[in-house]
Amino acid sequence: MIGIGLIGGSLLRATAKAGRTIWGATQSEEEAETARADGYDIASSTEEALKRAAAREAIVVLAVPLTAVEAVIRQVAVIAPGCLLTDVVSVKQPVAELVERIAPEAGYVGGHPMAGTTRSGWPAGDAELFTGAAWVACIDHGTDLTHWRQVAELALDIGAEVVPVTAAQHDAAVARISHLPHLFAAVLAGIGAEGGPLTLSLAAGSFTDGTRVAATRPELTRAMTEGNRAALLPAVDAALGMLGAARGALASTGSLGATLNNGHQGALAFAATKQDSRTKVRIDLAAEDAAEALLALGEQGGRVTAIADRVATGSVPISA
Amino acid sequence: MIGIGLIGGSLLRATAKAGRTIWGATQSEEEAETARADGYDIASSTEEALKRAAAREAIVVLAVPLTAVEAVIRQVAVIAPGCLLTDVVSVKQPVAELVERIAPEAGYVGGHPMAGTTRSGWPAGDAELFTGAAWVACIDHGTDLTHWRQVAELALDIGAEVVPVTAAQHDAAVARISHLPHLFAAVLAGIGAEGGPLTLSLAAGSFTDGTRVAATRPELTRAMTEGNRAALLPAVDAALGMLGAARGALASTGSLGATLNNGHQGALAFAATKQDSRTKVRIDLAAEDAAEALLALGEQGGRVTAIADRVATGSVPISA
Repeated sequence: MIGIGLIGGSLLRATAKAGRTIWGATQSEEEAETARADGYDIASSTEEALKRAAAREAIVVLAVPLTAVEAVIRQVAVIAPGCLLTDVVSVKQPVAELVERIAPEAGYVGGHPMAGTTRSGWPAGDAELFTGAAWVACIDHGTDLTHWRQVAELALDIGAEVVPVTAAQHDAAVARISHLPHLFAAVLAGIGAEGGPLTLSLAAGSFTDGTRVAATRPELTRAMTEGNRAALLPAVDAALGMLGAARGALASTGSLGATLNNGHQGALAFAATKQDSRTKVRIDLAAEDAAEALLALGEQGGRVTAIADRVATGSVPISA
Repeated sequence: MIGIGLIGGSLLRATAKAGRTIWGATQSEEEAETARADGYDIASSTEEALKRAAAREAIVVLAVPLTAVEAVIRQVAVIAPGCLLTDVVSVKQPVAELVERIAPEAGYVGGHPMAGTTRSGWPAGDAELFTGAAWVACIDHGTDLTHWRQVAELALDIGAEVVPVTAAQHDAAVARISHLPHLFAAVLAGIGAEGGPLTLSLAAGSFTDGTRVAATRPELTRAMTEGNRAALLPAVDAALGMLGAARGALASTGSLGATLNNGHQGALAFAATKQDSRTKVRIDLAAEDAAEALLALGEQGGRVTAIADRVATGSVPISA
């Protein structure tokens, strides 16, 4: 585990709790000392952690911020070039491109757990953070399904559910459901504060909810959103188009009906994805079309919930 | 109390609980029967309720949707033209203009309790809905402070805290902290759903929070936002400007720093308004500059929490 902040630290705890052998590395000596005092195995350096990984053919998990990923991949390419490599970074195409360029021999499977809090660092970590959460495990041209399976089993072991998608699908989706919401929260908070103390003093539920993630440390939000620039730009353009159309309709006809009805339908569709009516799916991971079958499950909003005897079982929502 | 839906029905319960004499009216015979069965005094018609108000010099409270306000004000002008009139409608300038045009003799003080739920109707009402909530009581040119005081005392009696503002200040503020958040939630929900089932299946906290109010019945959100069109348009323009600037910066320099830092500052300013460090304020309601002093308190994000012996006491937040 390279990096033991909120996600890496939670993953270190959860993996140890699941009975696996795991060790971590961090650039912060203070964080390392705290984690050791909590009973975890923290190597003296990233280099040492990777040497142990190479010797034991371990899975290497990158849990560092996107801005630090390139430097760590360079170390992986030198010290542990043949290890199975995965990551928990919130964008997938940029990381895949770095791996392809710098460490092409690594058996890479991009990962992204869809869980978090507005806090950060080792002390914020929680072994239960991933329970029931979606864990993206990417399948792209060249992904070895035996590698994919190992990463999926790691996620399942710690209570997550696995979503098989391409890196491009992932980046487009998170632009819409995570990065744009963070940008909207910042804009709303800015517009509210621009109104002055009177304006903020009247704020209630809708403003509180709409601005909650603006409390996240801006460096973290910047790394996440700016790192997904290519996929975020079209999502922002779609939002500008929708908001501009609403503005035009309000100014010309006085009606926000089209925008608000469309949003209400979207809210109902979102609520429907969380309902329990789902179809069970079984996918033979040894079959020739296994990758296509997994990706089809992901596209339908499905999740893999168990893997045994080369068969992945999961479910897809029955559309409302 | 003309109208006994969520707000009017809660106010009817809370006012009765506070020991005041109160009676209501509703166009729905079913709602009237339910409220009577619950032990409340519901007149046979709006006309009858207003006749009793005129005879007893009662305060008339309009708690009907904005679209029904004009018709009720016409009845007030005929049946109870001299009564003290207030309302709980979510926009204030449009209602003030209607009163000025149709019932100019009414002693009108615009009101707006900043409380609610996503449910509606008499059964959703709650005598405790206003406990600790901000209750806007407007002061404009021509507002009689003895009238203002009666409306403020009503709000204080039921546990609310009173915010003195002009109608224009109110409408501009709620456009920023309520109506724009509702519009943003609709746009976000629309953008998420446009991404399909895979996109929605990956949504977590930021999307859930950012879209929560899109689950509100769209007719209610339409009435509220469209009714505040004049104040909402500049707020939407400000948001479009901020989002457009973010888009431009992301495309040209790759940075969202300005937008995200500004939003984070806004979130901190909002959190500061909820802290307990406040300065106590006493305002002599008989003084010549009482209206200005009350409005100054409102502009600083302050609230009146008690009125006794012609003195309003309250507090304003100490800026962070």
